[in-house]
Amino acid sequence: MIQITLIQIDNYGPWTVTPSPRFEPDLQTLQSRLYADLEREFGSHGGIVFYNRFDNLIAISNGIGEEEHRKIQESIRNRYPITISMGIATRKTALEAQRVATEMIQKGGGAQSSERREILNIDSLANEEESRVQISHIDINNITKTLTDVETAYDTSIKVYEVLVELMKELKKLGGLCFFIGGDNYMAPSNGITKNDLREALKNVDKNTGVTLKAGVGIAKTGGRAADLADLGLEDIRAGLTEDSVLIFHD
Amino acid sequence: MIQITLIQIDNYGPWTVTPSPRFEPDLQTLQSRLYADLEREFGSHGGIVFYNRFDNLIAISNGIGEEEHRKIQESIRNRYPITISMGIATRKTALEAQRVATEMIQKGGGAQSSERREILNIDSLANEEESRVQISHIDINNITKTLTDVETAYDTSIKVYEVLVELMKELKKLGGLCFFIGGDNYMAPSNGITKNDLREALKNVDKNTGVTLKAGVGIAKTGGRAADLADLGLEDIRAGLTEDSVLIFHD
Amino acid sequence: MIQITLIQIDNYGPWTVTPSPRFEPDLQTLQSRLYADLEREFGSHGGIVFYNRFDNLIAISNGIGEEEHRKIQESIRNRYPITISMGIATRKTALEAQRVATEMIQKGGGAQSSERREILNIDSLANEEESRVQISHIDINNITKTLTDVETAYDTSIKVYEVLVELMKELKKLGGLCFFIGGDNYMAPSNGITKNDLREALKNVDKNTGVTLKAGVGIAKTGGRAADLADLGLEDIRAGLTEDSVLIFHD
Amino acid sequence: MIQITLIQIDNYGPWTVTPSPRFEPDLQTLQSRLYADLEREFGSHGGIVFYNRFDNLIAISNGIGEEEHRKIQESIRNRYPITISMGIATRKTALEAQRVATEMIQKGGGAQSSERREILNIDSLANEEESRVQISHIDINNITKTLTDVETAYDTSIKVYEVLVELMKELKKLGGLCFFIGGDNYMAPSNGITKNDLREALKNVDKNTGVTLKAGVGIAKTGGRAADLADLGLEDIRAGLTEDSVLIFHD
Repeated sequence: MIQITLIQIDNYGPWTVTPSPRFEPDLQTLQSRLYADLEREFGSHGGIVFYNRFDNLIAISNGIGEEEHRKIQESIRNRYPITISMGIATRKTALEAQRVATEMIQKGGGAQSSERREILNIDSLANEEESRVQISHIDINNITKTLTDVETAYDTSIKVYEVLVELMKELKKLGGLCFFIGGDNYMAPSNGITKNDLREALKNVDKNTGVTLKAGVGIAKTGGRAADLADLGLEDIRAGLTEDSVLIFHD
Repeated sequence: MIQITLIQIDNYGPWTVTPSPRFEPDLQTLQSRLYADLEREFGSHGGIVFYNRFDNLIAISNGIGEEEHRKIQESIRNRYPITISMGIATRKTALEAQRVATEMIQKGGGAQSSERREILNIDSLANEEESRVQISHIDINNITKTLTDVETAYDTSIKVYEVLVELMKELKKLGGLCFFIGGDNYMAPSNGITKNDLREALKNVDKNTGVTLKAGVGIAKTGGRAADLADLGLEDIRAGLTEDSVLIFHD
Repeated sequence: MIQITLIQIDNYGPWTVTPSPRFEPDLQTLQSRLYADLEREFGSHGGIVFYNRFDNLIAISNGIGEEEHRKIQESIRNRYPITISMGIATRKTALEAQRVATEMIQKGGGAQSSERREILNIDSLANEEESRVQISHIDINNITKTLTDVETAYDTSIKVYEVLVELMKELKKLGGLCFFIGGDNYMAPSNGITKNDLREALKNVDKNTGVTLKAGVGIAKTGGRAADLADLGLEDIRAGLTEDSVLIFHD
Repeated sequence: MIQITLIQIDNYGPWTVTPSPRFEPDLQTLQSRLYADLEREFGSHGGIVFYNRFDNLIAISNGIGEEEHRKIQESIRNRYPITISMGIATRKTALEAQRVATEMIQKGGGAQSSERREILNIDSLANEEESRVQISHIDINNITKTLTDVETAYDTSIKVYEVLVELMKELKKLGGLCFFIGGDNYMAPSNGITKNDLREALKNVDKNTGVTLKAGVGIAKTGGRAADLADLGLEDIRAGLTEDSVLIFHD
């Protein structure tokens, strides 16, 4: 069971233009610092956060309870000009968990409601025993030599985001999610996706985009540890220890 | 003439896995803090930075000279475990400027070269007189009511990134660039793109993705100021002061 | 029993001047960010950190074990150009605990040794049962009206630091420590100091410096919670709920 | 002429306890991040900021005009839950400049007034020609071997803060200011203080505290550059290039 927390800035859109549009570099700083801070808060309890759209962030939060979530909300309120609401749900797949987590937020009020403030709606928390996170760390083979060092920065970026969208759609079919994490790297919470299915999904994206993808997969009690194991898998593929495009490690 | 700085972390890929893969939440924090810091450094001199792929960032740097660039490199070296290289170029269109800026970086060495360190290769700087930045701030009409508050967080994200890729490709045809800046917002350095062409480009993306886009456009001496004006344009469209999907302001 | 972690930047002095002196505003940023980050890491596990001298920081770390300490060291190494060593000790008084924690660091090598790196020397950890932190939050009565709003900023600062030194010495006699935490506020880990003794200590400082001090005292299992309770005590004195200069709350 | 900006958080005391006392680690993070951010903003324009009391910060701001100051206020408002007011004054000595800068703030309202918000009161700005900053970087001889590596962390801290208070008082007599900047380092804006007078002042502090102090002095158009030169002076003394306790460099 994977536990997902959807984090949404309260009434953010209206705030950014009140009383008049705020300086964009300030907003960009605010958003990336908020993300970094949430990453630290969840990360220090074994979780991991994806910035997603920056005003809607998605965390793998297995092992993190109600009290810690409230503490995080409080800590943001104490240091930022904005507040955050959260919805939490635990399900067999990441797709389902985020669906219910979204509902939890939505039933607390709209993203641009000036009344909603620091909602914490919990559908379910993963207990220690059933807690299980599967994360796939996917990257593009040899991107430095084929793109970064020879194409323009922008053309490389187009390719990287094209791959992202294909991965997002392809993994959704299997009950997974996918996020861009910088460079040519993607992380996919992928509970319940088999090695075969993942291998096929990567091949489909390869075909549609012209790159070649590989994935290390980690399975563990928490998101942070699963990501660690996924990294190790990816390293072994890079090192040529397997010819498979997918390698799974679990605790 | 728009001046673009391409910023690349030196030898970042290898560093992230040496001696073994570093904890992903730490890397995510590092990347988003680095971006926030660069945003502040460029922002405090009138520029604006887009995170792009986090290890390759793109700044609109009109008005910022060699000395300031060196100072920024030094400041990063003094506070981070990594260093950055930069290429700078000034051209009539953003696409051309980033192309040459990329070449400037590439001729300094590969992104994964352990020898390259803090290269600063300048093709050209915009002088005060010819300096001119056009930025379009694009967003999706009514996303909160049609997506955020009714669809799942992930489905909304797929749509938002799909629109991004379409915008990236569409604007490239016109010599522009496009970046995601959070929420449902995109910023497009768009020197030389006419109101008509931009309106058509948005329509094409609308057609391919099923959303409706609008754009405020700002033209000014610096990126920061152009972004400000673009925000004002967008606000006026939102407020219904025009029925056009594009509104341009310049100093 | 109070558990104290002494945190020391490895070989920091030499680093700041290699290859030539680094830009002071960069170093100031580095130090204050490092402090903020350590505050977050320890804070998210119920601890509290005092910046002390910025390159030697002192944390109340009850409830935080070896594994978390290692994780914090790793997280700093992954995001900063420097590393940190730590010594941990648990004793009946804060003064004793920091004394032994210092020894733990010192036996790992000198502060300017280029060989010492990420030492973690643990004398003792507080177990759940015996864990007990007493913190006094001390401030100056009515400083805004008597100093901040009427004297120069510098004269107010001299007074505030003069009070700090007096408090540091006075509390040491009783087995306590004292740190400046901004404004006119001081925090004193003060396990084992009675209400009477604290009241007397404040009076002695009053006499030597011409201000009037008061203190809220909190007693709890962790440093963070003890600080919370101390704040509540101070608020009640401010609100006139007692005429005593000291008020103690415990869980 | 030295230009000093006094920065004061608006109504900070009341905010920290509204509606109830905020979590101390959050406040410590807020304060140190705010300081780091102000250091970056002023630093990127050649200035330097001292945290002083964290809610009252002092910047050497030569070369930084009204517009930049407003931009900094705006940037803080856009990213923090608090706002800042500023007073600016230019005088022959740092002591005088901060005195007038304090008056500029005070006449805008009290530090705990809920009405005062983002005051920017300028008595005078240094013009390019007359701009001149003298900064002394002072440290304790051989502190690592005599204190850090042999005494307890706390005893070393007591000594370091004792020296601070003595320096603050001694330099005030000569029209200077003094701030602690971490480790065993102090920075003293010291316009108009001669080499002889500074040497005497250090000797007086030596006598009262039992340490031996030395100082590199830098004189330049801006605070950042003066600090750089002061660092170089200190390095040369450390390297034994002079037997004097004071060494001055200027552009």
